[in-house]
Amino acid sequence: MKAISPADQLFLWLEKRQQPMHVGGLLLFSFPEEAPDDYVAQLAGQLREERRVSQPFNQRLVTRFGQPYWDEDRHLDLEHHFRFEALPTPGRIRELLAFVSAEHGHLMDRQRPLWEFHLVEGLRDRQFAVYAKVHHSLVDGVSAMKMLQQMVSESPEERQQAPFWALPERRRRSTDQPRSSVVQAMGRLLGESGKQLGTIPTVARELMKTINEARKHPDYDSMFHAPQCLLNQTITGSRRFAAQSFSLTRIQALADTYHATVNDIVTAMSASALRTYLMNQDGLPDQSLIAMIPMSLHNRSGGGDAGNQVGMILASLGTHLADPVQRLGHIRESIQTAKDRYASMSSEEIINYTALTLAPAGFHLLTGMAPKWQTFNVVISNVPGPKQPGYWNGAKLEGMYPVSIAMDRMALNMTLTSYCDQVEFGLIGCRRTLPSLQRMLDHLEDGLAELEQAAGIQ
Amino acid sequence: MKAISPADQLFLWLEKRQQPMHVGGLLLFSFPEEAPDDYVAQLAGQLREERRVSQPFNQRLVTRFGQPYWDEDRHLDLEHHFRFEALPTPGRIRELLAFVSAEHGHLMDRQRPLWEFHLVEGLRDRQFAVYAKVHHSLVDGVSAMKMLQQMVSESPEERQQAPFWALPERRRRSTDQPRSSVVQAMGRLLGESGKQLGTIPTVARELMKTINEARKHPDYDSMFHAPQCLLNQTITGSRRFAAQSFSLTRIQALADTYHATVNDIVTAMSASALRTYLMNQDGLPDQSLIAMIPMSLHNRSGGGDAGNQVGMILASLGTHLADPVQRLGHIRESIQTAKDRYASMSSEEIINYTALTLAPAGFHLLTGMAPKWQTFNVVISNVPGPKQPGYWNGAKLEGMYPVSIAMDRMALNMTLTSYCDQVEFGLIGCRRTLPSLQRMLDHLEDGLAELEQAAGIQ
Repeated sequence: MKAISPADQLFLWLEKRQQPMHVGGLLLFSFPEEAPDDYVAQLAGQLREERRVSQPFNQRLVTRFGQPYWDEDRHLDLEHHFRFEALPTPGRIRELLAFVSAEHGHLMDRQRPLWEFHLVEGLRDRQFAVYAKVHHSLVDGVSAMKMLQQMVSESPEERQQAPFWALPERRRRSTDQPRSSVVQAMGRLLGESGKQLGTIPTVARELMKTINEARKHPDYDSMFHAPQCLLNQTITGSRRFAAQSFSLTRIQALADTYHATVNDIVTAMSASALRTYLMNQDGLPDQSLIAMIPMSLHNRSGGGDAGNQVGMILASLGTHLADPVQRLGHIRESIQTAKDRYASMSSEEIINYTALTLAPAGFHLLTGMAPKWQTFNVVISNVPGPKQPGYWNGAKLEGMYPVSIAMDRMALNMTLTSYCDQVEFGLIGCRRTLPSLQRMLDHLEDGLAELEQAAGIQ
Repeated sequence: MKAISPADQLFLWLEKRQQPMHVGGLLLFSFPEEAPDDYVAQLAGQLREERRVSQPFNQRLVTRFGQPYWDEDRHLDLEHHFRFEALPTPGRIRELLAFVSAEHGHLMDRQRPLWEFHLVEGLRDRQFAVYAKVHHSLVDGVSAMKMLQQMVSESPEERQQAPFWALPERRRRSTDQPRSSVVQAMGRLLGESGKQLGTIPTVARELMKTINEARKHPDYDSMFHAPQCLLNQTITGSRRFAAQSFSLTRIQALADTYHATVNDIVTAMSASALRTYLMNQDGLPDQSLIAMIPMSLHNRSGGGDAGNQVGMILASLGTHLADPVQRLGHIRESIQTAKDRYASMSSEEIINYTALTLAPAGFHLLTGMAPKWQTFNVVISNVPGPKQPGYWNGAKLEGMYPVSIAMDRMALNMTLTSYCDQVEFGLIGCRRTLPSLQRMLDHLEDGLAELEQAAGIQ
């Protein structure tokens, strides 16, 4: 039995009926060339036999003396966690996205280990999919995508590859990243790491202290002035998932042309898509939207550790600007300013700063009371992915899309990852608050095309 | 906007993560003879166009001044309610039951009208299915099955038949039954009908009053002495659904042989199945299990209305008896005694008695505190079904199975219905509390066969 850390407890507390706190990933595969038509059913049969379930996937939530712990599930029911399912006719990507939308909206059973693995047949053109969901208290989004990647190999010849729940713990842990500073910041918000806080009022009090601290911060003015918009409403329990691949070659060409980074370009695509979507919904604010972007930072000040540091950037998206090139310039400058600010900070300072920035959102989430400040409007997260083609039991991985979390006052989450020559967007949102969210996919393509047109690339 | 009655509010209050309060039905159809292979997909296309949504399926829950109301959903998203889905290979009944098990465990989105209609393709032998779920605050189990029946017609020629959500309200209402005395009794438990109680403590206080009343009742001793067993534990959020058809001809033959009713025989089958299941789980109590059986009663005392009255019978199942014929005799006598008791009661008295019997279970459900008395161990409910074959858009209805509610301390619900020459069992239970629940289907068949053997029928 192992006590649950305060940061992980937070994800359990935050969860409610209309706000499930699990992250997911969608992997799209094509059949191996020689595979028979019932290839996926055979694979399902093979997976059903994978009865080794390693940590943490054999751990369930138990409560002792009012405190939550992880404890081994001695009656683990693999049939509950591994599900073989199918798409209806005609088995297009559209049906797959509808499937993920419905599944991602369902709460998991708290009396069992908090993960599910859905193997999905019935896609046309000899393709199939895996949709996995894991509670955020078990792994964060980056680790979840890594976990799925570890299932695949660079060799198309390998067979009998285990699903993630059966991978030996050591193999998984060796590639685990330390928790990002976002998660460290959450821990900070909850007081000293390892301290069990017990109740939501205690946490809310801690958060309020942090918010009052923030008001003294020199950047206070810029930190808490995102406009209110459609994206920042109370959400409902139903989700819409939309996903699409874009060519990294096209994006890289634009980055070269505009002397920008790939991240600047995908942020500009997102900004353009948000602008068009909100205009069509008659709800574009006059002020620019602010995005929260977790980002790898080379910490040059030597504040203890010299490695990569994941920090949180608040970037202005320039959604008030009609011209796509002007908007890109605005975004690039805004991201650069934030990076420069971090460059002069120690790791410790970055964590503190992140904690300050997260506090108002956290306070709202826990108490339901809305502070006047809207720190940011949307999360745009970029999770690194593999550069080489991957195979799982001979089946080629064609694409992988992150499925993240929508929250009250943060009705849309845009997470992207890279795979070979693809940039993979996964959008998850509340389908009632954000009608026809799937149109954002076309708007993302338009956002790419308008920059190409302006640069004279067709 | 329409206020929600206290009895209907009860079903909203009782609902929690591990205890969804919706009822469902599973309909199994075969393709019309001339139908193409993509028949179900075509049907899905047709149903998607049924954008008329009539009362109460266009009503969603809203709260005004702390009170719940039904109000029209002006942004009804049919895609959320109507779902076209598929079974994985090999598309047997087993895959269908796994599908229903998973879906029935998911809470519905409270911000929307509380119903879902799943059209399921991918069954082999040119069959398909409909699984519908509706919240108990909207309709009770009997009405839900009726609602599904109203979709079908006796004519195989009829086409363009609407799904239940699009049926004109008047057509639906004309065949509605008045609420059973079980529901009336719940209303009684909650004080005067129409009175808004507001809070769970108020309801719990009312219930405690009723329980104290019960202690003065002459039948008190027999009422609150069911043994504790596996079935009467706290449940989790995951479900197992098991369903099977049995021949009414076989059951009727036994009823004739043993001078019993069809209901006596199906109750004996259930008792035998429970006995075998609990023995295999090493948990058969020494004392007989008690079943709560809602039953139609001819009220001969003329207590106001002379029509059919649905009362609640507490029947001893004789699970302590090894001999199947002795067990059947025990059950028959127990049911007859209960019927005789009701025969001398007025409608008013029946409702009061039902309220007294339900009170301890209701008290536990609302407060989580377990009173010492276990009134009954299991619900065995028999809902009348159609005698003539039904068709929906030319597709023959092959079977219909009720999917009811499992609750804390009532981990199994056995509901059955009749259709043509079939008796259709639908078992729903908590799949963690009751492992391998699906084996009960074999035990039901064994329960039938042992009575046949004893009677010399093979």
